[in-house]
Order: sequence, then C-alpha cells, then structure tokens
Amino acid sequence: MIQIPRGTQDILPKDSYKWQFIEDTLIDVCEKYNYQEIRTPIFESTDLFVRAVGDTTDIVNKEMYTFKDKGDRSMTLRPEGTAPVVRSYIENKMYGDPNQPIKVFYNQPMFRYERQQKGRYRQFVQFGVEAIGVEDPLIDVEILSMLMAFYESFGLKDLELHINSIGDFDSRKEYQKALQEHFRPSIDEFCSDCQSRIDSNPMRILDCKKDKNHPLMATAPKITDYLNEESLSYYEKVKSQLDKIGIKYVEDPNLVRGLDYYTHTAFELMSTSDGFGSITTLAGGGRYNGLVEMLDGPKETGIGFALSIERLLLALEAEGIEIKNPHTLDLYVVTIGEEARDYASVLLSRLRKNKLTVDMDYKARGVGAQFRDADRKGATYTIVLGENELETGQVKLKHMATGEEVETSIENLGEAIK
Amino acid sequence: MIQIPRGTQDILPKDSYKWQFIEDTLIDVCEKYNYQEIRTPIFESTDLFVRAVGDTTDIVNKEMYTFKDKGDRSMTLRPEGTAPVVRSYIENKMYGDPNQPIKVFYNQPMFRYERQQKGRYRQFVQFGVEAIGVEDPLIDVEILSMLMAFYESFGLKDLELHINSIGDFDSRKEYQKALQEHFRPSIDEFCSDCQSRIDSNPMRILDCKKDKNHPLMATAPKITDYLNEESLSYYEKVKSQLDKIGIKYVEDPNLVRGLDYYTHTAFELMSTSDGFGSITTLAGGGRYNGLVEMLDGPKETGIGFALSIERLLLALEAEGIEIKNPHTLDLYVVTIGEEARDYASVLLSRLRKNKLTVDMDYKARGVGAQFRDADRKGATYTIVLGENELETGQVKLKHMATGEEVETSIENLGEAIK
Repeated sequence: MIQIPRGTQDILPKDSYKWQFIEDTLIDVCEKYNYQEIRTPIFESTDLFVRAVGDTTDIVNKEMYTFKDKGDRSMTLRPEGTAPVVRSYIENKMYGDPNQPIKVFYNQPMFRYERQQKGRYRQFVQFGVEAIGVEDPLIDVEILSMLMAFYESFGLKDLELHINSIGDFDSRKEYQKALQEHFRPSIDEFCSDCQSRIDSNPMRILDCKKDKNHPLMATAPKITDYLNEESLSYYEKVKSQLDKIGIKYVEDPNLVRGLDYYTHTAFELMSTSDGFGSITTLAGGGRYNGLVEMLDGPKETGIGFALSIERLLLALEAEGIEIKNPHTLDLYVVTIGEEARDYASVLLSRLRKNKLTVDMDYKARGVGAQFRDADRKGATYTIVLGENELETGQVKLKHMATGEEVETSIENLGEAIK
Repeated sequence: MIQIPRGTQDILPKDSYKWQFIEDTLIDVCEKYNYQEIRTPIFESTDLFVRAVGDTTDIVNKEMYTFKDKGDRSMTLRPEGTAPVVRSYIENKMYGDPNQPIKVFYNQPMFRYERQQKGRYRQFVQFGVEAIGVEDPLIDVEILSMLMAFYESFGLKDLELHINSIGDFDSRKEYQKALQEHFRPSIDEFCSDCQSRIDSNPMRILDCKKDKNHPLMATAPKITDYLNEESLSYYEKVKSQLDKIGIKYVEDPNLVRGLDYYTHTAFELMSTSDGFGSITTLAGGGRYNGLVEMLDGPKETGIGFALSIERLLLALEAEGIEIKNPHTLDLYVVTIGEEARDYASVLLSRLRKNKLTVDMDYKARGVGAQFRDADRKGATYTIVLGENELETGQVKLKHMATGEEVETSIENLGEAIK
C-alpha cells in the first residue's frame, strides 16, 4: 500500500473545517489592517534561498527540497515565505506603486526536511505578512499589533511576546566585533559549525543548539549594549507605542536573527500554556532592511513575520479552545423505492440551486437506516418520499431535534425550510 | 535578478481577490452539495502516480516533477488530484465510515512540466470533487449537476457539456479487441507511441495528438456500440436524469479515457466563447471504478472531476463577466505632525479591534498627498488629526464621495462610522 510521505499530513474532512476557520479568521484580521493576499509558486530557483536565507544556515545546508527540473534548472520547494515575496516585489516593480508600503499576506505551504516531532512537519503551512517600502517604528508597531490581533481573535491568552532590537548595520558591525573578541580565545571548545561561524557570522553562534550550555554563552555581550543612538531611539519608539496600545512584551536581548539583512526590530511570540510541547514558538519575524537590495532590488526596507498554522492549532488545543464544525445539513430526503429516489435526485438539484444544503441516500438503504444516516449527518429537517407523496405532491417536513412535523407541498419545500 | 520559474505565476494583490471570490463561490456550491474539504501533501511517492496515472501516459513519462528527497525516496509534485485523494481514502480507511459515499473537494496546486501556452501553466490550481464508495447513476448525476452549478453560479453561459459512457470492464474488453482489429493492419502508419499502445492500451490511440488526422481515426469503432446491457442501462439512467434536471449535454462517443480504471460515465465541459483560446476544455472527469482496488484498497468505486481555476478565469474574461474588488477601506486617518501620527497609530489599533478597516500614512507625506493616498486606497471616510484635534478630542468625519462632514469625538469615531 502506498503511504503518505513521512513528515506530511492529510487534512481530512473531519478536521478541515478547523483550518478553514483559522484561515478565514486570519484573513479577516488582514482585511482590517488593509493587507492583501499574494501567492507565489511552490518552488523557486534554488539561488533565491541560497542568497536570501544564506548558505551558512541549516535551512539551506540541510533542510531544503532541491531538485533539477526537466530543463536542468535547480529548483527548491520554498522553505520560507519572505524571500519569494521579495522576489515578486522586485520582479513586479512594486516599489513603483504609489501605495506604500506594499502590505501583503500569504497563506502557503512551506517545506523543510527536518526531524519529525510534535508540531513539526516537513510540509507545514505558514501564514505570513510583509510590509515593504517603509522604515518607520510605526509600521513595526502595526505589524506587532496585527500579530497579537491574530492570536487574540481566537481568544488565546497564554501568549508572551518577546522583542529585541538588533540595530542598524553599523550597530551590528560593532556587536559582531565584540562577539568575536568574546568567543575567539575559546572557540576550539565549540562545535565545528561555530568555529566557522565566528568569521562568517558570529551572531549565529548564539543560536547554536549544540553549544547552548557553554558558559561563554551566558556571559556573551548583548546587542542592546551596542546600539547606536539612532537604533536606540528607533527601538524606544517601538516600545513606547506598544505601551500606549497596551501590548505587553518581554525584552529579550538573546533574540537575535543571524542573517545579514536583519535590522532593528526582531520578535517572537511564545505560548506559555502548560503541555504545549517543547517548541513554544508560535510565530517569529523582524525587520529586514537589507534583503531587497541583496536580491538586486532597490534600496527599500521591509518587515514581516510568519506564523505556523499547525502550532496555532496546538495552542488552541492547549488552551482548550474548541472550533465548532460550522457545517449544517438543512434537509435529508428519505426515499422509498426507485421512483422516489429518481425524483429526489431532481428535487435535490433544485433545492441546492435555492441555496439549501441537502442530501439523500445513495446506498439504497432501508428507511430506518436512512433516518440514522440523516441523524449522523446532522440534518435539521427530513422528509420521506414514497409512492403516496409523489402522487399527492405533499410531504411532511420533520424537524429532527423536536420531532415536530409540518405538512407542505413539495413545490414549496424550499420556502417551508427557510 | 532572480526570476520566477518559467511556467509559474505570482498572483498579486491586484488580482488575488478574483481567486478568493472564485474559491469562495466554488466552496459555497460544495457546501450545498454536502461535500467537505480534503487537503493532501504537495508531493507524494512517485509510485502513486506511476501506478494510478499509468506509465504509458505523457503525464508520467514526460511531465512529472520527480526528485529524490534527502532520505533517497523518489517523490513527485502531484500532477493531478484524484490519486492522492484515493491514497488518503485507503490509508485513512474511509471505506469504513458509515457516511457513504465519501464526498470531498480539494483546491490545490498541480504540477506538470508542459510547453507553455495561454491558460496552461506548469503550476496550476485544480478545484476537484470526488465521491467514493457508491456506484449509482444518481451519484454520477449529482456530480454532473455540481459541475454545472459551479459554472452557472458565476453566470457563465457559453458552456457545452460532453458526455459519454465507456461501459464496465467487460464492455471495454470487447471494445479494445475491436480497436486492435481496426488499427492492427495499418499500425506501421502510426507513431511509435501508438505502435506500443495497440497492445498495452489501444483506447489511447484515439487520444493521440500526432495521428489525429489519420483516416482510420474517423472510421474507428465507437465504444457506445460495445456497451453491454448493464452499461447501456446505467448510461440511459444518467441521461434521463440529466434531462429531468434540465442539464443539456452533447453525446460524444470520442470522449474516452484511456486509463484502465475508468468505467461508465466520462465527461468534459467546454467553453464555446469566441476568443477563448485553442484549449477549450474547462473541466473533465469520470467514473473510476478500478482505481481504489488498483491502489491496494478494497473493491470500492468512485467518480469525480477537476476544473482549472486559471481556465475558469479565462472563461469569465471571454464572457465579459467582471469580478468586483470587494475590498473597502472604512477610514483613512490624515495626520499633521509626529504627535498626531503616534496618536493615529494607537487609534488605528483600537478601530481595527472594533472591526473597522482603517489605514494611515506611513511615509510622512503632506496633507494633500495623504488625501490623494486616501482616494487611491478607496477610503470611504477620512479624518484629519492635527494639534487642534488632539487638544479638543473632536474630529470632522468626511465622507469622501459626497464631501459631507460630521463632527464627532475621537472616542465615538467607531460608532460614527458604523
């Protein structure tokens, strides 16, 4: 028997309404913030991710689904959503649009070949937003406000927003120098990845999973001590606006994003629910002022974040928030005999055009089994169609919950139900 | 500059509302017919498609995006939607569900490495439905009725439904013998593909693009002359029910589906609009009684179809049916000075929580430029926030279309707009 690929999942009818509800809710928030949808292809030139995500990252080195297409071009199933949006922004010259910033959201599967664990899939869905073309603390605040609105719109409460500033390019340069001085004397105690990171990208040492308990980690210099005046005032503005809006946050100087194009605001949203699992990050993002230029676009800045829908589902579960199945069945037509079934098939088509959700039995079951089927399907009303009903054109419309029956002509059935 | 992969497209904010509208409309029809969503992974084991679609087809031989994952397993980006749904049906033992048939729809990208032309992409979106677990002409009719309901719900009129029956397995066996006798004497006049098809799958000769003008094509035996009694009566029932419902169709004896598992009802929906382009097929499907078993599932039958959303968009265009952009902006806040901007950022957050769609200027533009921005963004109302307004807490709410102004407190702004 052929099985589903490891690390991927089917979303079955018994669960898909949850996904639909989550997506509809998120899209509704995007609407209020005036963000519009963008959709990019499932795969992109491998080069896009090598350049944007960087060839020193695990994503690019170990986790990408890369293949040659039949034209011998190297393609990669997208591992993240920002690079494709920025590629599209540049290619479609959106920087020339008078509406600035460009505010978009996406809702798309991503692909990373990672070890499987709870809440982590090789194909997972990211819902992300990007605001490109403006550098202003107020837009950073808008993005953070939208992030919180997403989660709060589901009634989630066990949330902890971590924020940090990694400053502008100048601040980071100073900081990297300090990190190199801090780690260099003992770098041979670190893993081989860290030994090469100390030159290429020392900030990524702070992210290392292998060396996270090395004593030098706790004593490492903090980026916040290296912010220049401009970066500090940018960060202060973000924080004071968050205070005014009433968004709580934790300042987390260890929250750094190692990639070269990140600047200023960086953030992650965590779940603090008991039993959420070991990966508590729900969403993450930050300002990426260097990315557009790095991908050969103009000198434009951006900020965005992505959340995982799989993790959002886990958070809802952890807080005991249930999504109700919204599907209803207005009418189930119980039939007796072939003539009645044929007639029902025509009737259904008419009622469906009349905007009613209706169904019937297609297994030629007995009347009792059909009523059980109607019950299982959650039908609000039933009618029985037999010889007699076909002759008289009159049926009894039965309300399943109360057992109440109303007589009506088949012709007026739609109206009677409404 | 890195470009989008050939044959794929970005769906940009200026167009994405059309896709959203189409999908919402299709999903609404599915609801009425009591079909629920299923989502399967973007890639599957290559074996699934080799077995289900067949290794004599162009799809499998020439058009699949196949790659090895990092576990050295051969994976393929799905080229069609039915095989994954049937794989999921078997793997999740849906045949044991008391609700039969299993009625599902999907809305997912598909991938085929084909020559690019109008309305044909290498990544394209198929919206499909499947009803698995029942063999009954009435369910075939339900599926056809849904197909028409999809298109009619957009107001499309230039539609032509082609139907045919390819009978049950016995009928097809007889027919294939007749085809072999017909083509065999002159098979060396046909292409090499057809020369191998005559043994492996003679029905596929009728689909050959290279030999379509060979005189033996026109005189080939028709499947409809080889239907046994049971197959004929199945077909007659489908047609008589379509007549009763009022669905028009063209009987097309050349409409065959070459794959072994297809049986009985086969159909295609064509656009008859002028200027639609050379590929006129909007949707296609049929009954596949052999597929579940072929994929090592139980002896269960199914029927379904898929439509291309890209082609549906072309059909709407060809018939001059416009999809209106539903996005509205309730309020644009024009600001004068930094204090007002900071205040606006907080105000926006509050109004958005209050379910209003609001925006402001993030480019520190002048008042005139901000009003032009408000206009471009289609704002229904504007307010101006300056020193005076902050002091008094009163603003003038201006209706952009009429120019009418109403004075209100900032506190009551949300209510005033509603």
